[in-house]
Amino acid sequence: MVDISRGSALGPSGASELFQLLRDGRPRTRAELAALTGLARSTVALRVDTLMQLGLIAPVGDALSTGGRPPSQFALNASARVVLAADLGASHATVGLSDLTGTLLASRTERLAIAEGPDAVLGRVIGLADELLAAVDRSRSDIIAVGVGLPGPVEHATGRPTNPPIMPGWDGVDVPAVVQRHLHVPVLVDNDVNIMALGEREFAWPDTEHLLFVKVATGIGSGVISGGLLQRGARGIAGDIGHVQIARGEGIPCQCGNRGCLEAMASGPAIARALRAAGLQVSTGQEVVDLVRRGNIEAIQAVRQAGRDLGEVLATCVSLINPSVIAIGGSVSQAGEHLIAGVREVVYTRSMPLATEHLSIVQSRAGDKAALLGASVLAIHHALSPASIDSLVGA
Amino acid sequence: MVDISRGSALGPSGASELFQLLRDGRPRTRAELAALTGLARSTVALRVDTLMQLGLIAPVGDALSTGGRPPSQFALNASARVVLAADLGASHATVGLSDLTGTLLASRTERLAIAEGPDAVLGRVIGLADELLAAVDRSRSDIIAVGVGLPGPVEHATGRPTNPPIMPGWDGVDVPAVVQRHLHVPVLVDNDVNIMALGEREFAWPDTEHLLFVKVATGIGSGVISGGLLQRGARGIAGDIGHVQIARGEGIPCQCGNRGCLEAMASGPAIARALRAAGLQVSTGQEVVDLVRRGNIEAIQAVRQAGRDLGEVLATCVSLINPSVIAIGGSVSQAGEHLIAGVREVVYTRSMPLATEHLSIVQSRAGDKAALLGASVLAIHHALSPASIDSLVGA
Repeated sequence: MVDISRGSALGPSGASELFQLLRDGRPRTRAELAALTGLARSTVALRVDTLMQLGLIAPVGDALSTGGRPPSQFALNASARVVLAADLGASHATVGLSDLTGTLLASRTERLAIAEGPDAVLGRVIGLADELLAAVDRSRSDIIAVGVGLPGPVEHATGRPTNPPIMPGWDGVDVPAVVQRHLHVPVLVDNDVNIMALGEREFAWPDTEHLLFVKVATGIGSGVISGGLLQRGARGIAGDIGHVQIARGEGIPCQCGNRGCLEAMASGPAIARALRAAGLQVSTGQEVVDLVRRGNIEAIQAVRQAGRDLGEVLATCVSLINPSVIAIGGSVSQAGEHLIAGVREVVYTRSMPLATEHLSIVQSRAGDKAALLGASVLAIHHALSPASIDSLVGA
Repeated sequence: MVDISRGSALGPSGASELFQLLRDGRPRTRAELAALTGLARSTVALRVDTLMQLGLIAPVGDALSTGGRPPSQFALNASARVVLAADLGASHATVGLSDLTGTLLASRTERLAIAEGPDAVLGRVIGLADELLAAVDRSRSDIIAVGVGLPGPVEHATGRPTNPPIMPGWDGVDVPAVVQRHLHVPVLVDNDVNIMALGEREFAWPDTEHLLFVKVATGIGSGVISGGLLQRGARGIAGDIGHVQIARGEGIPCQCGNRGCLEAMASGPAIARALRAAGLQVSTGQEVVDLVRRGNIEAIQAVRQAGRDLGEVLATCVSLINPSVIAIGGSVSQAGEHLIAGVREVVYTRSMPLATEHLSIVQSRAGDKAALLGASVLAIHHALSPASIDSLVGA
């Protein structure tokens, strides 16, 4: 397939191409840029000037000098613009502003029910954004793009939720259009677990091409990074492993209407239910985690068993996509090594040696930063893409 | 990530970039190329001349004319060079020559034991290639690249088999180097199921971005296409689902040393074993297929059950990668709809509605052409890539 979107390479957008080299944030001199591209020094100088005028790159520090005036270095101007990131859960909203490298400048979390609907929830996101902009002394016009994570399936190309079970009033809503009533910039929308996968990779595994991020909380889901790219699948629901049926679940009803699903056995509420049946006073995943931290043996055993149930499904995932990292996040993962130990036990028992030889199964390192960082990455990736920069430089 | 391999776009290789537009085989006039690229007519004319001199493109037919001399059209010159494709199984070799669109010019299959080792087997592949070249009146110097499929795990980047269980003498062997003793061109090597996935997509599903190809024969494996690309995973063994453990398999020993694997329950030999236990005279997958075709009820039931077992694993695959097509090939798939019906029964029962709404589960359409076509595609994709064409045009 010819990548026509790169057709700009044949056109007049040399400055945009040069910018793609500088996006990584590493400072380079004009001479280094000429050597990297094979372009004439004079051409590089012109394009550097164009990018400087747009504020996309800036001179940085001084190159190591051997005497005389040191040559200027240029790099991505991280503070040229900001991105707005929003992580919306069933009952909370976290909103943040990041610079163009994804560094968080400010953020705020508050209780907000997704069930209040798109107008109310996204309106409040904009309100929080205004507060954050004021706090860091920036204005709405500094925002270059918006990234939003939602707790349900999303058609990424259009930014519309698709039959989201816990988001009444959001089905098929054009989320970018609602945001764009307030902010006239690109709005990228994705499932919350997908943005957590992006954030986890950015934070802890930047060189890993094959990573599976698993969230274990009220629900269970995953984000799949294969070949260095987030894979969304044909309908945008890749990674939706919560309703895979597991052996131990036989006959147990699940919220989805089916029986024996992983989520009905290994989610926070499912573990709590099992512990109540054993006589403990516990109703949420957080209370399960608290019990584990206090050393309650029944709770530890129940979390370990949930890990084994999860491992049953992840063993198949390991065979299918052959990741080098499985990172497990979400509130139940705060129970520490007990959950991970159960996962490892089953995945290592069931998998072929070649698949697990270099496989790391670990607790999420980005933790509760994963979602906001991922939403920022989603927005930055779009804003600094060749197509976006082309339009900025007028190609 | 900056794609440095496309750095050529900044350099002098305009002819190579123009070629990428013409790779799709569609004829275009100089004026159309100028409009597509934004380049000056004079620049397009120069680059067209360069590609014509290299033989990579050729004039075709005549554009629709409104009177006067019709403008010339140019397209990929499919017969400029050929690729050599080899599909090597446990006990056979199929070798073919294709043009640059993947159209097979000639092929030959013979019995050849992979266990004879790389020197003997690849030497025979070259011998067959020479016979085919003579038959179509071409010479070794016409070969632009070689694609090879092997019946075991392969590290695609180096072309070395990795602990292949049924390929004694091949572990870690530099397959490209062995072929290059005879042919001094790039050699691409991959697992046989991966090349079948590439072939199936090329043949029947060119616009499908998310396709799972499953081979059910002596062994069971799959090839994963996600986001339009074949996904090989961290160690090159993505798709290796034959040793996922299934519920019905509990305790049944598998060749791999583990118990309860899919392959131990649903492969051709496994179905034959189950039928022998029921008193039938049958020892191979092919004999199972023959029984099914003759309407033997026990054989039909056994194949249907194998489909259900396969469906148990594929239901998890559907949740994880959300494909729009599952194509089932390999000798056992020749048993017709009985295998597919078992797969569908379980996948549709166990999956979320959104995942199966537009999911096709079908018999392979490329059939026994899949492997050779896939090996050709692998070789052509490399030979016509920007980097390869850059070096041809001297960029």
